[in-house]
Amino acid sequence: MIDLLEIKDPSFIKDMSIKELKELAWQIREFLVDHISKTGGHLSSNLGVVEITIAMYYVFDPEKDKFLFDVGHQSYVHKILTGRAKDFENLRQFGGMSGYIRREESKYDIWESGHSSTTISAMAGMLIGNENKSEKVVSLIGDSSIMNGVAFEGLNFLGSQSKLAPIIILNDNKMGISKSVGALSKALSRLRGTRFWRGFKRVLNFIFPTFITNRFHQLKRGVKAFIQHDNIFEDLGFDYYGPIKGNDLRACIKALQRVQKNTEPVILHVITQKGKGYAPSELDQEGSFHGVGPFDKHTGKSLKVLKPNECSYSEVVSHYLKTKRETEQFYVVTPAMKAGAKLEKFAESYPNDFYDVGIAEEHAADMAAGMALKDKKVVLLYYSTFSQRAFDQVLNDIARQNLPVIIGIDRAGVVGEDGATHQGIYDIAMFKLMPNMTIAMPRNPEELVGIFNYAFTHQGPIVIRYPRGCVIQNLYTLDYKNMILPSWEFLKRGHQKCVISYGPDVERFVKLAEENEIDCSILDARYIRPMDLIALEEALKTHDQILVIEQTTIRGSLYEDIVVYAHEHQFTNKIESISFAENLTLPHGKIQDVLDHYGMSNEDIIKKMRVD
Amino acid sequence: MIDLLEIKDPSFIKDMSIKELKELAWQIREFLVDHISKTGGHLSSNLGVVEITIAMYYVFDPEKDKFLFDVGHQSYVHKILTGRAKDFENLRQFGGMSGYIRREESKYDIWESGHSSTTISAMAGMLIGNENKSEKVVSLIGDSSIMNGVAFEGLNFLGSQSKLAPIIILNDNKMGISKSVGALSKALSRLRGTRFWRGFKRVLNFIFPTFITNRFHQLKRGVKAFIQHDNIFEDLGFDYYGPIKGNDLRACIKALQRVQKNTEPVILHVITQKGKGYAPSELDQEGSFHGVGPFDKHTGKSLKVLKPNECSYSEVVSHYLKTKRETEQFYVVTPAMKAGAKLEKFAESYPNDFYDVGIAEEHAADMAAGMALKDKKVVLLYYSTFSQRAFDQVLNDIARQNLPVIIGIDRAGVVGEDGATHQGIYDIAMFKLMPNMTIAMPRNPEELVGIFNYAFTHQGPIVIRYPRGCVIQNLYTLDYKNMILPSWEFLKRGHQKCVISYGPDVERFVKLAEENEIDCSILDARYIRPMDLIALEEALKTHDQILVIEQTTIRGSLYEDIVVYAHEHQFTNKIESISFAENLTLPHGKIQDVLDHYGMSNEDIIKKMRVD
Repeated sequence: MIDLLEIKDPSFIKDMSIKELKELAWQIREFLVDHISKTGGHLSSNLGVVEITIAMYYVFDPEKDKFLFDVGHQSYVHKILTGRAKDFENLRQFGGMSGYIRREESKYDIWESGHSSTTISAMAGMLIGNENKSEKVVSLIGDSSIMNGVAFEGLNFLGSQSKLAPIIILNDNKMGISKSVGALSKALSRLRGTRFWRGFKRVLNFIFPTFITNRFHQLKRGVKAFIQHDNIFEDLGFDYYGPIKGNDLRACIKALQRVQKNTEPVILHVITQKGKGYAPSELDQEGSFHGVGPFDKHTGKSLKVLKPNECSYSEVVSHYLKTKRETEQFYVVTPAMKAGAKLEKFAESYPNDFYDVGIAEEHAADMAAGMALKDKKVVLLYYSTFSQRAFDQVLNDIARQNLPVIIGIDRAGVVGEDGATHQGIYDIAMFKLMPNMTIAMPRNPEELVGIFNYAFTHQGPIVIRYPRGCVIQNLYTLDYKNMILPSWEFLKRGHQKCVISYGPDVERFVKLAEENEIDCSILDARYIRPMDLIALEEALKTHDQILVIEQTTIRGSLYEDIVVYAHEHQFTNKIESISFAENLTLPHGKIQDVLDHYGMSNEDIIKKMRVD
Repeated sequence: MIDLLEIKDPSFIKDMSIKELKELAWQIREFLVDHISKTGGHLSSNLGVVEITIAMYYVFDPEKDKFLFDVGHQSYVHKILTGRAKDFENLRQFGGMSGYIRREESKYDIWESGHSSTTISAMAGMLIGNENKSEKVVSLIGDSSIMNGVAFEGLNFLGSQSKLAPIIILNDNKMGISKSVGALSKALSRLRGTRFWRGFKRVLNFIFPTFITNRFHQLKRGVKAFIQHDNIFEDLGFDYYGPIKGNDLRACIKALQRVQKNTEPVILHVITQKGKGYAPSELDQEGSFHGVGPFDKHTGKSLKVLKPNECSYSEVVSHYLKTKRETEQFYVVTPAMKAGAKLEKFAESYPNDFYDVGIAEEHAADMAAGMALKDKKVVLLYYSTFSQRAFDQVLNDIARQNLPVIIGIDRAGVVGEDGATHQGIYDIAMFKLMPNMTIAMPRNPEELVGIFNYAFTHQGPIVIRYPRGCVIQNLYTLDYKNMILPSWEFLKRGHQKCVISYGPDVERFVKLAEENEIDCSILDARYIRPMDLIALEEALKTHDQILVIEQTTIRGSLYEDIVVYAHEHQFTNKIESISFAENLTLPHGKIQDVLDHYGMSNEDIIKKMRVD
């Protein structure tokens, strides 16, 4: 037995026997369940990759070879093996260890893969840049990640570069984030059924001596075609090995020793069980243990004490859509966010109107545009950070064509524990530069419904953004008929500064101002674009000072639009911003911790709300 | 013989014999060569698709069925058949007919496909939205387009939706824009070698009655596996037909009649000859006749009279890179712009350092990031409009990680004849919202070299943008050693307004001011971000009025940054902008025509330069 907390670097693995490695695997599992049950984090995917990760460290040379994790949330085992077990105490906490790959954290962290499917292209660049070809580059990529467009572009490139010899381990847990979709997913199912080891070279070497197969590529192809049919990866120029049992340590080691010697692009198809070794996560079909909060490790039950009627904004949207659908037909399209955006019930009730297209953000946008061209209403749902993937399609195919697509942007603003690669602080700037785009952010569930109801009548593209986080709302007593036209609203009138903001923050600011008896006005700019010029002019005319507070990067913020408007209309008010500096990348941590650290604590806000 | 100019709608085709249709094909070819030789435009791809386009109109019902062209520049035959032959007089001219699909132009123009590879996702949306399944949706997509990530995402989706029955015609001219790259391209080569018609159903129906094969999917698969190996499209869930000779009208009609009856997703692989029927374009291996200016139709020689030493900015960059490479190793990565960005010579001289990855903008960015992680210098070249495709990768993988990638942005600003989908007016706003990003635009070739030389020393990401268009410059007398550090420069000092701009426009403004004896200052803001605050403060302190002139959308412009800076530092100058209004989509036309029409004519500029 080794003390995981004492690991300094992964060199110890090389000296272990298979038996010891197997013990290590179970020790790591226990450690993961133990720690993640306290801190929360990504559980299932990490439980699934324990053996294959250990095997990577056993077979390859981590001091020389490079390991990429796609996406980074399946790197917990890698973190333990590279001396970070002790940091799990503060996993995903502000100032603590990231739940993703972070280069600052360790020299073994190579590629910060927060958004999926980038490792294949990155490894191509690294292999080209590694001119003496001395290092192996290995990507461990999930079966959902490999179906994204950029992964395909990477495979298409690497498959034609035989001298680079990338090693791709396809971690196929048959689920992706929830359930994989698409033709490639079906193709993987078929491969899973293959009973025999497809180690093609072994078979060939049995028939011909190596020097013949190495030299006569044509012959190799010919013989191969006789023995087996090409699968899609082989069509793309990769040698394909597998499928192998990814939770069988000995099989993993044997397979990696084989592919390590490959001199051409290779994919090793590894079947793992998501959640392996912990019953509640093994049985989880909905992805509840994919990203999880603290739970009781003995029962698997969440430790989160829900207040009565507490629900997330995702749930409000989901419930709204389901209610709306009862009286009006429309489509919901989302890339791999069925579980994350709580859309299971809608999907179940209206399977023909719901399309989870997998991690395919670009496709989702253009498909929505196609539906809109057929005069269909369509709600396209993204997380703020992943909507960045569809920038060109939304700009060029939806906004430029002025198509009436309703774009729901979940996880807008500071995103919390997922951290730097997931912050929702760029979407306003991004959508604001597009023609014809309306952008709104409601301050509470009722307004959210009202803005969605307006969106269904709106004749152009509209973004409705809402934050991660919860709200107290009885979903069954909400007024699902209310409609809020583009407008701003004074929630509080005072005599000193006018605070302009949007989203649920606004209600917090009202409360802060009242509790602290601050004589300010508070203006809810619920439609960020176009601005409500009547309300804005009133604010400018009746207040000397304006304070715009936003959980967004300052470049492209509403603050900038207000300053420019004021300038162009000869207002001389002092206008200030609380937002994020332009070159800042916000780290992970509880949302409030991040806000506190970057100038948006209640104290900061109160201080700024008062007249200087 | 029909008079092409008299065509009102495509109904006449249905009544024609094969012989007449063949005559029509050659008549259209002659028309295309005749007109494009006068106006310029996309020649080769349209000459290649004459027969298949005619066959589409012959077999399908254009009043009901929908045709998508990917990309739209291969739609000239479609334009002729739908009654627009007469508009070829003004092809791509301001106010004239677009060279792409444009919904305003015709009810037969369905999907505005300026950026490649979007039709497959769009057709998915249209097929879902077309609930009674009465219309067929057909996409004619090129072999380069189909290799992009979004096309793959679309194929992956549609291949798993057997009830939708999309019809994809893969127009394989073996070249793409210049020469196709990647593993899929190799797979297509292999398919091209297939000698027999792979109409799988025909074979099956020969063996079993239809009702058996329809009901027993498993049996079908089994028999099929015996008869032939799956190719990549079949792996993705499509029925594959072909390859057929795409310039054989009878073969096209027969094949389309067959796929028309398909009730599952189908791909028809059509081999066409790019440039077919016009010797100079048939022989063109470099893509010179892909997009072409006016030429002598008898010789194929360009009619453009080059002034001595006239060259494009692309050529300056290309020559710079080749010169730089003589003393320093670095990589050049570009998605399908080898010919467009004039990189042939660099590619020839340094084949191991040059990567044209095909239409794979996202992959290109992540591959460049991977190279940078290996401490390699890398120059990543995009057109402004296509860089939008890599927004997330540049933001998240290059800018957030602060990797020193040099991003060359060609075709920045108004782009001219390609029009609405190709304008380079969003890149500044887009790159400006990213952390750590430096953005520059040189005013002449010497400055371009100087900024590139600085970029090679810069420790973070940097965008260097340059326009379409030409300049008089002897490339061999340029000082390739000069270096320009981040700074602005007063090119003219006067007493009234201070004009701030960047790029070659600045030199035009100096000339205009001098010729018209306007007593203004002109400040070259060659580094758009970060701003040169010393120069900016000087401008603000010594001038009452500032005029910022930019070929960009006003949202996210330098003007906005200057207004915000002035506001934050208590400057009260009057600051004005000449730029493009936020909801404007600029049409096609000569660059000067577009500028003239949208408030940037010399007269507009002169008027605004003077103090009001």
